[in-house]
Amino acid sequence: MSTVRLVDEATASPRVRAVFEDIKATKKTDRVTNLWRALATNPEHLELVWTRLKAIMRPGKIDLLTKEIIALAVSATNGCDYCINSHTAAVQKLGLDDEALGEVLAVVGLFNTTNALANAYQVEPDILPEAARG
Amino acid sequence: MSTVRLVDEATASPRVRAVFEDIKATKKTDRVTNLWRALATNPEHLELVWTRLKAIMRPGKIDLLTKEIIALAVSATNGCDYCINSHTAAVQKLGLDDEALGEVLAVVGLFNTTNALANAYQVEPDILPEAARG
Amino acid sequence: MSTVRLVDEATASPRVRAVFEDIKATKKTDRVTNLWRALATNPEHLELVWTRLKAIMRPGKIDLLTKEIIALAVSATNGCDYCINSHTAAVQKLGLDDEALGEVLAVVGLFNTTNALANAYQVEPDILPEAARG
Amino acid sequence: MSTVRLVDEATASPRVRAVFEDIKATKKTDRVTNLWRALATNPEHLELVWTRLKAIMRPGKIDLLTKEIIALAVSATNGCDYCINSHTAAVQKLGLDDEALGEVLAVVGLFNTTNALANAYQVEPDILPEAARG
Amino acid sequence: MSTVRLVDEATASPRVRAVFEDIKATKKTDRVTNLWRALATNPEHLELVWTRLKAIMRPGKIDLLTKEIIALAVSATNGCDYCINSHTAAVQKLGLDDEALGEVLAVVGLFNTTNALANAYQVEPDILPEAARG
Amino acid sequence: MSTVRLVDEATASPRVRAVFEDIKATKKTDRVTNLWRALATNPEHLELVWTRLKAIMRPGKIDLLTKEIIALAVSATNGCDYCINSHTAAVQKLGLDDEALGEVLAVVGLFNTTNALANAYQVEPDILPEAARG
Repeated sequence: MSTVRLVDEATASPRVRAVFEDIKATKKTDRVTNLWRALATNPEHLELVWTRLKAIMRPGKIDLLTKEIIALAVSATNGCDYCINSHTAAVQKLGLDDEALGEVLAVVGLFNTTNALANAYQVEPDILPEAARG
Repeated sequence: MSTVRLVDEATASPRVRAVFEDIKATKKTDRVTNLWRALATNPEHLELVWTRLKAIMRPGKIDLLTKEIIALAVSATNGCDYCINSHTAAVQKLGLDDEALGEVLAVVGLFNTTNALANAYQVEPDILPEAARG
Repeated sequence: MSTVRLVDEATASPRVRAVFEDIKATKKTDRVTNLWRALATNPEHLELVWTRLKAIMRPGKIDLLTKEIIALAVSATNGCDYCINSHTAAVQKLGLDDEALGEVLAVVGLFNTTNALANAYQVEPDILPEAARG
Repeated sequence: MSTVRLVDEATASPRVRAVFEDIKATKKTDRVTNLWRALATNPEHLELVWTRLKAIMRPGKIDLLTKEIIALAVSATNGCDYCINSHTAAVQKLGLDDEALGEVLAVVGLFNTTNALANAYQVEPDILPEAARG
Repeated sequence: MSTVRLVDEATASPRVRAVFEDIKATKKTDRVTNLWRALATNPEHLELVWTRLKAIMRPGKIDLLTKEIIALAVSATNGCDYCINSHTAAVQKLGLDDEALGEVLAVVGLFNTTNALANAYQVEPDILPEAARG
Repeated sequence: MSTVRLVDEATASPRVRAVFEDIKATKKTDRVTNLWRALATNPEHLELVWTRLKAIMRPGKIDLLTKEIIALAVSATNGCDYCINSHTAAVQKLGLDDEALGEVLAVVGLFNTTNALANAYQVEPDILPEAARG
């Protein structure tokens, strides 16, 4: 159970209600999910997180499915249950089937291994990105 | 400096040399990077990691650039310097320019925030993946 | 459900009971919470953790509310549910309302982003602490 | 060395220069630190991170020193070197001496232990925050 | 609830069934645990993870109990509930009693503290491993 | 470079000097490593960490090599460079050769993968530890 009382859609302040309406319009859903209702206990913070998420989660040079895959990779690495559920549902809605999901997670799993190994052996970088080579 | 003596390409055992040759042929490079040279101190483990990486890092339902982006997202979340350098170089080689890299990292940064917030508020899942909805 | 049988307050060994009594007296509560009852399966370890926590969680140069806020920031970053529940309850008991809690978590969320970004860009330090400048 | 070419203060685009000027005015310094110069490779992302940081790192219900202490606690838990240097310098500038810094870090260290222990014993919450009790 | 439909032991494809049979034979149990049933949604990935786990979790220079203790230490540090339950059950089955488990976890907890402290103080290495000394 | 001025062995306060002497006597070395010299900026905290480490890092039901292996597994998972160097040197001094070290790290790497996978699939526990079965 959440550690704060979730803000109800009906009773929220005008400031919160404006964000809630924008969330529903942008996401084309008719309800506001729990994380937003928890964030609404601090309306300024709610606005900051939503504004930023809305700006970043637009298709740009990177398409939306790739962005949701990144979100899932980060969430699985951090072990955030709420986020894993949310982003798995999102990639499924965007068309990723279970076999492709398995392929994504194979990559996530693999590099959680190599991260631990590269750290453990204190290996120094040898493949330099452009700036470092420049 | 690495915590074990890196295995030299020239002096390695036949078993190690076979993996080294396969790495160079598969990656179309003429040298073996440091992580593999560290792993070669345990030849069986070297084989296990390389075999698995080779199988997973092939284009499948998910293309190679997306896989390297996932690898970068995982590595940035874990803070593995060697891996970040390696995967940033890889996505640049595959054509991602600095602005697009910034867009990828914006997503990585964003969801490291929402992971912390969803955990902190102990929010319960509301968007269920397919199986959970089943 | 915990992975070990929680030690009952009534049946514990004298060594464990002494710690339990000290916990209740120090925290001014009439029950011992679950983590201590799990730790009591190794009485020496119970003593070590409790002695250290008691010494550190006293107001010193840093007041108690700030210390509980630090505890919450660490726990949210690590995603430890038990700890998040415990330290959120503690900061609320010490007077932090939901809006202020939101402000604390905004900071926690923000720096989980910048941590990922600074790692991802492999940025070198430019603002040096005193010793490094010295 | 950073993975992208840091944007120079002099040569930046008007959009980037506006953010750089605001950073210097807000922080009352005469140079822009490296993380901002790396972020400037994607001007929109630079704006998003700066706008959010500026809004959150203002004294509110939580004072600025406490916010920098939280930032340090998060950064130490994540092991982000750049961030640790930056936030240690900030808390020192705001008056925290080495002994008080040691007290802060004692708390950070302590709860990294109890997080691991609470997770390891899979202990269920017993001290409920207000909403969960409500 | 898992985010994918778990593959049933009876209905699996021949490729999956072969892995399931090998899991049961190797572990000397009569059922396949949930993680394997989830991984089976991508049969190739199932094979890769199982083959690797089977090769690594054999007694070698390091005995099996030590390997399961390492697995538990990693899982407690990452806060992976499923894994903690699984590896705690494994070490108990291999003979570790609650007091010894407490001793293991004392070490896990201790070094989660010193990790945070060494990072926070940005201390430079002074005890060098052999290769670095070499 | 460390973020605080390291306390010199010669000039330390009696309280700090007593701990430094005990460290050297216990570890049978003639110098105090950097982490302890950083911690000495807060003498009480120095005592707390040292007392606890000394109590935990004694052979008990778990031998010293296993304890250092656990320390290395935790440090590699957290990516703490100082700690990885220190504990790798320790296991090497206790007799672990490079091949055995590779076997240890194979286990560390493997379970960083399965942790991410079990989290990602939100798999529910099926192998219960004793207390949970009880």
